Amino acid sequence: MAYYAEPLDRLISELSRLPGIGPKTAQRLAFYLLKMPKERVENLTDAIIQAKNSIIYCSICGNFTDTDPCSICQSPYRDKSIIMVVEDPKDVVAIEKTRDYKGVYHVLHGAISPLEGIGPDDIKIKELLSRITPEVKEIIIATNPNVEGEATAMYLARLLKTLQVKVTRIAHGIPVGGDLEYADEVTLTKALEGRQEME
Amino acid sequence: MAYYAEPLDRLISELSRLPGIGPKTAQRLAFYLLKMPKERVENLTDAIIQAKNSIIYCSICGNFTDTDPCSICQSPYRDKSIIMVVEDPKDVVAIEKTRDYKGVYHVLHGAISPLEGIGPDDIKIKELLSRITPEVKEIIIATNPNVEGEATAMYLARLLKTLQVKVTRIAHGIPVGGDLEYADEVTLTKALEGRQEME
Repeated sequence: MAYYAEPLDRLISELSRLPGIGPKTAQRLAFYLLKMPKERVENLTDAIIQAKNSIIYCSICGNFTDTDPCSICQSPYRDKSIIMVVEDPKDVVAIEKTRDYKGVYHVLHGAISPLEGIGPDDIKIKELLSRITPEVKEIIIATNPNVEGEATAMYLARLLKTLQVKVTRIAHGIPVGGDLEYADEVTLTKALEGRQEME
Repeated sequence: MAYYAEPLDRLISELSRLPGIGPKTAQRLAFYLLKMPKERVENLTDAIIQAKNSIIYCSICGNFTDTDPCSICQSPYRDKSIIMVVEDPKDVVAIEKTRDYKGVYHVLHGAISPLEGIGPDDIKIKELLSRITPEVKEIIIATNPNVEGEATAMYLARLLKTLQVKVTRIAHGIPVGGDLEYADEVTLTKALEGRQEME
């Protein structure tokens, strides 16, 4: 038996296919959308369609952009001799928010994961290699500190060293504001290994 | 500084205006939508637009419907002499899922709440009164068991009694599968008051 009219049923089922949205949240969102002024609903659907139509991958770094190359690759103020390698466009946003990094990026769109059948050829490693010119001084590997991210970092480090380019990895350690007591052993070991002399 | 291209920024801000969707979830959803096949995105926006255009309020009970009257009000199998009064279309779905109720509904679209400035004229009470014909044998008040819902129930009970119609209220008590230890005092008191003889 259908508890909802067909168009409402369809809306709920489409919404519940989105990540992190279960049937209850989908129902709540659908009812909210129905009660919303029509013009606000149109703003939303319009924003989805516009973004879908105009956002592309930057042909240089692979980040989401509406211009090609993206604003970061295009900017005269960014240092093209430093490339930070990240797994996902979300990571670019996270780094940009620090306002501390002035190099450029390379988005791999994934990480090597034999378990999930993702090998080096399934992520944008070839594209990274093609960017390594004599101009490039350093590659910072900022893949996630988990099994897949570490495997990808190791693979890239070996590959890139054959190209005579300096490869660095972001530091692992205790998060700022964190508590030694609650840090896991691996993080603590990494934090000790990465200790630096105080001045 | 903008961390996202403008159409992406707009999508994230539209998504984060939805209930229960904070900036992080909005970002995650937006990135997911961008990676989704175009055809699935079109299914979603289409479902939103279709639902918004075709779903109306039933002119009898006030529930969401795509036909007027709604399928419940139209059904020859539903007992029109019993009307269950609920606050929201969501409540109709919750009751329908029990598959136990064969009467019809009346959706108030809210509850009386002096704090929020919602009085009896701001919810569909007039519409309920106009449905009280000699054919109607019972009004079941199923507003929520909170301050606003109880106030609305009291108000309706007094009003409807002057119309010589039987008014009942759904029972309060310990939820099935619940634990006495974790029930609050008010619920326990209500559960005691509502005790019934065992057979």
